[in-house]
Amino acid sequence: MDKIHSLTGMLDHYDDGDIDNISVKIFETEKRIKKIFSSYKYSEIRTPALEDTNLFIRSAGDSSDIVNKEIYSFDDRNNKNIALRPEGTASAIRAIIEKKLDQSTHKIWYMGPMWRYERPQKGRYRQFYQAGVEILGYEEGAAEFEIISMVCSIIKEFNLKNCTVKINHLGNQDSKKSFCDALVSYLEPFKDKLDEKDISRLSKNPLRILDSKNKETQSLLLNAPSIKDFIEPSALTLLNKIQNEYKDICNIEVDYTLVRGLDYYSGFVFEALSSDLGAQDSFLGGGRYDNLSSKLGGKSLPSIGMAIGIERFASLISDFTPSNKIISFITLTSNLESKPYKIAHQLRSLNSDIILDLQLSEGSLKSKLRKANKNNSDYAIIIGEEELREGTAIIKFLDDELKDQETVSISDLYSFYKAL
Amino acid sequence: MDKIHSLTGMLDHYDDGDIDNISVKIFETEKRIKKIFSSYKYSEIRTPALEDTNLFIRSAGDSSDIVNKEIYSFDDRNNKNIALRPEGTASAIRAIIEKKLDQSTHKIWYMGPMWRYERPQKGRYRQFYQAGVEILGYEEGAAEFEIISMVCSIIKEFNLKNCTVKINHLGNQDSKKSFCDALVSYLEPFKDKLDEKDISRLSKNPLRILDSKNKETQSLLLNAPSIKDFIEPSALTLLNKIQNEYKDICNIEVDYTLVRGLDYYSGFVFEALSSDLGAQDSFLGGGRYDNLSSKLGGKSLPSIGMAIGIERFASLISDFTPSNKIISFITLTSNLESKPYKIAHQLRSLNSDIILDLQLSEGSLKSKLRKANKNNSDYAIIIGEEELREGTAIIKFLDDELKDQETVSISDLYSFYKAL
Repeated sequence: MDKIHSLTGMLDHYDDGDIDNISVKIFETEKRIKKIFSSYKYSEIRTPALEDTNLFIRSAGDSSDIVNKEIYSFDDRNNKNIALRPEGTASAIRAIIEKKLDQSTHKIWYMGPMWRYERPQKGRYRQFYQAGVEILGYEEGAAEFEIISMVCSIIKEFNLKNCTVKINHLGNQDSKKSFCDALVSYLEPFKDKLDEKDISRLSKNPLRILDSKNKETQSLLLNAPSIKDFIEPSALTLLNKIQNEYKDICNIEVDYTLVRGLDYYSGFVFEALSSDLGAQDSFLGGGRYDNLSSKLGGKSLPSIGMAIGIERFASLISDFTPSNKIISFITLTSNLESKPYKIAHQLRSLNSDIILDLQLSEGSLKSKLRKANKNNSDYAIIIGEEELREGTAIIKFLDDELKDQETVSISDLYSFYKAL
Repeated sequence: MDKIHSLTGMLDHYDDGDIDNISVKIFETEKRIKKIFSSYKYSEIRTPALEDTNLFIRSAGDSSDIVNKEIYSFDDRNNKNIALRPEGTASAIRAIIEKKLDQSTHKIWYMGPMWRYERPQKGRYRQFYQAGVEILGYEEGAAEFEIISMVCSIIKEFNLKNCTVKINHLGNQDSKKSFCDALVSYLEPFKDKLDEKDISRLSKNPLRILDSKNKETQSLLLNAPSIKDFIEPSALTLLNKIQNEYKDICNIEVDYTLVRGLDYYSGFVFEALSSDLGAQDSFLGGGRYDNLSSKLGGKSLPSIGMAIGIERFASLISDFTPSNKIISFITLTSNLESKPYKIAHQLRSLNSDIILDLQLSEGSLKSKLRKANKNNSDYAIIIGEEELREGTAIIKFLDDELKDQETVSISDLYSFYKAL
């Protein structure tokens, strides 16, 4: 029969135990990042994959790439246009508003698949993974320090080298506007040198021009007004304090040209990048977005958050080892002899921190021990016909070749396992 | 501005710390089930949310409810009919085949959202959560014992009361056919007493009639032929051995009328149910499905698996307590005084098993301590102007009202935290 294939741009991930496999790295990344989120006392929020498409149009802005080119939307059976979420923040804020929690403070995290419909290319998938946090209900100050502390903890947890955390401040509504006006006035005379994309940004979202990939635009920007001269002194103080407080932990750089891809950011923004990633070097980014909640029909809710691109992040990690002990449980009796399975069950109930690999196939001791070694098992527990008859088991110390195997009673086996 | 709402039948889940909240129970269920999967040495497989709709038509069978009524499918921009997965097994097998791993053995698990498009009703959602395992490449025997051992471990982990694990054997291809023929011959004369659904099953999938909810059909079935008289002696032996081996751990019942909703099952099948769930009492089910891989274009791959309905399972759990220590970090200095944040950062890097809740808002000591108590914090670390000046911190023992608070140096604070 012919095979059915996965859809374009959508990968399967399988933990085959090979730590060089990107899927294994993704799972490890997620596990450890979740632990960091919890240790900071953030709470999980989980929203559905599907939303009313209007949510993303209203949050990301109708001039954003996400909405214009990439959104994975379709009409459902009732002809309602719905979309697979392209990012996590809009849904999280929608949920907080809908639960009427938009008057209190929250520290939340999410993790999961996101979707975009675009031409598949290297490192870009139609289903991809993001994790993020949102700190809701706190004005500028402590929340900024906390989020950069978390960024540093994440980079540190995985021992990432060659990373830089860039920070900037886009000012308040007034100073942001003054800066944008100045930038437009400066660029207008050079309009014929800008490409189509940047010309359109000039009227819709001039800040994004700072992010232009166009060489000619970049050289024009060298003499452009700097946001440094427009933002309030308190904003400059914040940037300096953050840099000073964390500089011995992470490489932190103030970059006055740093802007973010979505319209809703204002105030403090940041991005983490690695020179190991090539051209698309950013693996984490975020900032303050005090206006999103009211834009989505909620109360005014000062907010700051960040998102991590799991695939890119995972591609940076290496040298991690699983920490739990592994034991191979080998039976040499008939496959239908049930006593050994019961013993394995009892062992597992005694110590859930041990990974017990019950080898389910019939085969020789030799082939089963080979499998145990391949598995990185620390011990093998072996039960054959003789052991079954006598109520014993053999413990083989795979982590110590010099040590002789031991035959023990089943109750001693239980004590041994419990004490591991 | 008007609000944007979540879509019909799709819930948000938020961990608000209330252990009676179903979302909190869902997260706890998932966490502990994942730990059990790992301790049995199963590996995660993660497939995309979207698949070619044909995958589910071919796997579930075109007479199944899943495909006929419930599948959440739509045409994408290229007019290809694609579907949000309604269950996890078909995608897992498709992935194993596509990775050319269908000739080796695997023990895998998955966990995640599934979708179906049906009229929303109590306890039925359009996005819901399932976890499952698949044991691939093993003939009948050890794999059956292992999977029931895992079912027992899961029930035990959560201390579920009033649970029964029902087991049955649908025979091999020949005996299954003989039984179906006998069942059809027995029911044919009563055809006018059957409802439309069961009449259609009579020709398409007679086994499913055993599952009929129709009272009249049920009383007819009392005198129908029993599968017990058609399956091989080895199948009866297997059922008895499984029951005997695990009966002191779980309540296991042989039920010769137990069948499963999907066409692809054969051989050993099982279901776990709880009398606390009402009419829809099953929260876990599975069985052997040796023919699915070749049906999907892969090699012949003997397989057995199970799936757990997370929402239903979570509704059964109670009395769980988080195990990590919680500490509230309280600053009474200005919100922009950065030193205390750095101290909090250092503490976190010293002991990642502790949950440190850095209170981000300005406020009185009283209100912050109230919040710490509400959080179930074991300790509070307090830094005010005086402590900041003198390089000290106050430790307050919230878990022990009789113990006096202590003022310690920052380096003693680090030692205290590290040793917790």
